[in-house]
Amino acid sequence: MTPVSPSPAATVALRPLDGARLADGFWARRAVTNRAAIPVGYDRLAKVGSIANLRIAAGSQAGEAAGQSFRDSDVYKWLEAVAWEHGRDPDPALLAWLREFGGTLAAAQRKDGYLNSAIQICGEEPYAALWMSHEHYCAGHLFQAAVAAARATGETGLLEVATRFGDHLADTFGPGADLRPELDGHPVVEMGLVELYRQTGERRYLDLARHFVDARGHGWAAKSGFDPSHYGDPAHYSDRVPVREASTVEGHAVRAIYFAAGATDVAIETGDAELLAAVRRQYDAMRRGKQHVTGAVGSRWDGEAFGEAYELPPDRAYAETCAAIGAMQWAWRLLLATGEPQYADQIELLLYNAVLPGVSLTDADYFYVNTLHRRTGARGDLERSPAHGRRPWFNCACCPPNVMRTLASLPAYLATGTADGLQVHQYAPASLRAGEFAVDVDTAYPWDGQVTVTVREAPPREVELALRVPDWAQGSTLDGRPVPAGAYARVRRVFRAGEQVSLDLPMPARLLVADDRVDATRGCVAVARGPLVYTIEQPDQPDGAVLEDLRIDPSAPLHPEHRSDLLDGVTVLHAEGAVLEPAGSPYRAYGAPAPRTRPAALTLVPYYAWANRGPHPMRVWIPTI
Amino acid sequence: MTPVSPSPAATVALRPLDGARLADGFWARRAVTNRAAIPVGYDRLAKVGSIANLRIAAGSQAGEAAGQSFRDSDVYKWLEAVAWEHGRDPDPALLAWLREFGGTLAAAQRKDGYLNSAIQICGEEPYAALWMSHEHYCAGHLFQAAVAAARATGETGLLEVATRFGDHLADTFGPGADLRPELDGHPVVEMGLVELYRQTGERRYLDLARHFVDARGHGWAAKSGFDPSHYGDPAHYSDRVPVREASTVEGHAVRAIYFAAGATDVAIETGDAELLAAVRRQYDAMRRGKQHVTGAVGSRWDGEAFGEAYELPPDRAYAETCAAIGAMQWAWRLLLATGEPQYADQIELLLYNAVLPGVSLTDADYFYVNTLHRRTGARGDLERSPAHGRRPWFNCACCPPNVMRTLASLPAYLATGTADGLQVHQYAPASLRAGEFAVDVDTAYPWDGQVTVTVREAPPREVELALRVPDWAQGSTLDGRPVPAGAYARVRRVFRAGEQVSLDLPMPARLLVADDRVDATRGCVAVARGPLVYTIEQPDQPDGAVLEDLRIDPSAPLHPEHRSDLLDGVTVLHAEGAVLEPAGSPYRAYGAPAPRTRPAALTLVPYYAWANRGPHPMRVWIPTI
Repeated sequence: MTPVSPSPAATVALRPLDGARLADGFWARRAVTNRAAIPVGYDRLAKVGSIANLRIAAGSQAGEAAGQSFRDSDVYKWLEAVAWEHGRDPDPALLAWLREFGGTLAAAQRKDGYLNSAIQICGEEPYAALWMSHEHYCAGHLFQAAVAAARATGETGLLEVATRFGDHLADTFGPGADLRPELDGHPVVEMGLVELYRQTGERRYLDLARHFVDARGHGWAAKSGFDPSHYGDPAHYSDRVPVREASTVEGHAVRAIYFAAGATDVAIETGDAELLAAVRRQYDAMRRGKQHVTGAVGSRWDGEAFGEAYELPPDRAYAETCAAIGAMQWAWRLLLATGEPQYADQIELLLYNAVLPGVSLTDADYFYVNTLHRRTGARGDLERSPAHGRRPWFNCACCPPNVMRTLASLPAYLATGTADGLQVHQYAPASLRAGEFAVDVDTAYPWDGQVTVTVREAPPREVELALRVPDWAQGSTLDGRPVPAGAYARVRRVFRAGEQVSLDLPMPARLLVADDRVDATRGCVAVARGPLVYTIEQPDQPDGAVLEDLRIDPSAPLHPEHRSDLLDGVTVLHAEGAVLEPAGSPYRAYGAPAPRTRPAALTLVPYYAWANRGPHPMRVWIPTI
Repeated sequence: MTPVSPSPAATVALRPLDGARLADGFWARRAVTNRAAIPVGYDRLAKVGSIANLRIAAGSQAGEAAGQSFRDSDVYKWLEAVAWEHGRDPDPALLAWLREFGGTLAAAQRKDGYLNSAIQICGEEPYAALWMSHEHYCAGHLFQAAVAAARATGETGLLEVATRFGDHLADTFGPGADLRPELDGHPVVEMGLVELYRQTGERRYLDLARHFVDARGHGWAAKSGFDPSHYGDPAHYSDRVPVREASTVEGHAVRAIYFAAGATDVAIETGDAELLAAVRRQYDAMRRGKQHVTGAVGSRWDGEAFGEAYELPPDRAYAETCAAIGAMQWAWRLLLATGEPQYADQIELLLYNAVLPGVSLTDADYFYVNTLHRRTGARGDLERSPAHGRRPWFNCACCPPNVMRTLASLPAYLATGTADGLQVHQYAPASLRAGEFAVDVDTAYPWDGQVTVTVREAPPREVELALRVPDWAQGSTLDGRPVPAGAYARVRRVFRAGEQVSLDLPMPARLLVADDRVDATRGCVAVARGPLVYTIEQPDQPDGAVLEDLRIDPSAPLHPEHRSDLLDGVTVLHAEGAVLEPAGSPYRAYGAPAPRTRPAALTLVPYYAWANRGPHPMRVWIPTI
């Protein structure tokens, strides 16, 4: 019951675990909040007309199409959330939604398998402007939702619609002379087709995904009449360089990452080592020069895009919530493919510090853009500006249902396993089972690094328990013995029910500096503790402090304090620093006196929890005194 | 013969000078290049259909409207350049163009005075979507062109069209119950109307300009049905706060600055001290926290907008050429209003370092956006990206003809004067005359700070010669006596023909650091010499140097060297520094070793001259070792 389920023939190092359940704890609380957000999401999808669009296409309601061409995909992502949530915590109301929409979509679907409410209601020709119409994009999200429903509930109504659409795509697109050569401007259908292949065994879906992966990068966008005054660079569509030759990620971040994740799926399922090496190289380039300290990606508002290497401005970080979700999906596929802990480290970083900040703690309010610095006096100038604070929905509403489906499927990311053992990648109170080997994990993570694994059931033979020691966890021990950071600590033996393994991951506060080529954070530190990146936010600072005037003393120790009364329970960090006195002219001679300072105390909170007390000034990167 | 000519009743401290002529030298060379660009501009306007639009509207040509709604304004700005250029250096070909377009526009103009080719050709209702249609904006540029033609050539064909349109506007818009209340989304008509008033004496144009100035800031945009998913913030339209209450500039930079300049015109002509104080306060806020070290303004690509205070990223500086031109126009009006040298300092800074970089040295190629940092490996992702290099024209072509009209009218900015004397604001070889007082200025500025003023003719009574000592010119002398920087050095006496006054402005290279609140340039210096800001550009650095890896030693002296063979003749600066060795991971612990360095020599060129050898990597702010 996981979002990625490699076929038996796939070349993977690890296999997803069906039997993971969250117990109480940090993520279980977030899952409960997310469960409550799902019916709210239905109401918001209904309010903006996204649900009506499908019903109009189905003939069960009258009206005109509302919103952008890709609104169907918002409903599909929400349906995927409904499916995973039913699997996580069954509920007849969730099942009823899946059945209802299975019927609506079947009624809306054309006889030839095509389905897109915007095109059908408006009577437009399918695929006439595929570079911007998102028709394949919507199909990809339908496939993911249908596969989720089948895996999590056994319901196949959506899957039947999906396979008819998949067959239609395979009959229509491809390299053959009688097939259409165009590509969708926004990838995601690649992941969707591979999942559909995994669920149905139908090889043509995988073949079509592979075609879409390799056809990109040969200038199709330029041939498809896209508007050069808008986003005229083929990189915007991941179409500048063939994926096998690309050395980095570029252009529209979500498109690039969804595409790379889809290419990774194809590489896994076809055993394509060259393709796998290419996407690993691209992930590494992203990690080295195009990833914010929170794990978030995307540096430019224009084009919702990656910047150049080392272009990582905290204040104008685009850091779209969907891009972080996509990066997590990509990292998960690379983890399965390689078994390397760096990808599990990435998932931890992304989940806590780039995905979770995208949703409020107690309400279903969202960030589309996740800034790392909101200046004093900042005002929003676009609907998606984080300066407005969190919002219930967006005109372009990709992010909210993406958060819903991600948090609903969270148990899938905790561990992998086979008959030979279990690999625990993320720490949370949970029960995990791989065949006859079942364990309970207990921890106060992310506030404390003590993790206790209790064996509940074990086979009468040697199996291996592998526990990830995060790359930040220097000085860790497993049952008292030192274990290196950035690796799996492994115990291989005949386990017995009731016995315990104890992992201790020390969590001193850490000060981080960026690569010297990152211009935007020079002279600053970021603060992290355990898996969490911290930030200073206005409400926690001295009265009247202007955040731009605060400086941190990097030589002074930071003191943690757990505050159960604050922000749904967080560990805050207390730091020493200073406040700048006001300055005069904007540019002064080098060597002229810097503004004077006076001592000040700073308090840091986890970044994910910011903007839950209103849209206050905030900054992750803090200048040093 | 100047672009701003306050009426006799205006409350100004200084009066423009009709009798200024550039002699040989830096700006005279730029003027010759600009003269050659004007016929090239005609060809480019013709190629994209902007000229055809007007002829189609006039009925002298068949066809459909081409381009955006505001294309007429590109032709008007070009016509203004034609007019000033004819005044600067008369040419029958220029005069013929003015006459030809006078006829075309008269034929295109509706009987009621309305004129807009896009609306007329498409048969649309005028003013139906004024918040985005640019109809007043185009009118404003027509008024400026018509006034320029009248002042520079005596031709009144365009002025007749302009006054008919002005009358139509005054009959249609205003505060009265029978008048329309809407405002144009893009200011400039305010400056145009005041100029039209100055030229014709017709008071209703001034009254309408004052209405437009005070009507803004009361949420008209929100009432006009603008699209909130695009630029929904009233600040984008300078409509968030009434101009008298605004404390800073915000939103779309060109709109904000044109509006403020128009408000300054209104304040001057109506003697409105409150309004003048408001725009001065806003200019000061811009200078303190929203102006790049080059004088350029605009920090955000999205919305072509000002950022928040201290949001000044060199790499994503928007720094639109038009915004710098607008800032220069605004500073010029404030200089006339106040006589304060800070505004002349601003004009110098803007002209050399923010306007001039917008055009190539030898060809008519332009920058729309003027970045202060082009990274190694940068690729353009939008048509206006400076990463593409300079371009002959743009789909949105506001900047090229704006540069043309500015350089064609350059002599107007050199000096002011009355019967009581002359005030010299900008230094260039030139002849200046105010009544009976005439002088020749000789200098090798901007390469050398020695300025010699030779009296050619003087009245037989005391007059005053005021020479600006720039704010950067510490240690200056006038005829050997020390004079303070950031002030006018004044000589008041009975001058005689042939006598000389000698001003010496020392030009050591200067290292500048930004306000400590500017995050994006922390740990960096910018280099300036005299009025010029310098930069490092790839072709001048050691072979294979990666610009992001270069560091400057701020304790080592910089050595100037004049290179007549380079970039049409520039003084370069030689500096000492270092190159970073490659680094590994993107984020490291504070205190962990920084990458190692090895010594390197750096060579700096004036920023205005960058990208004349192709679109190479470049950076103005250089990290220190």
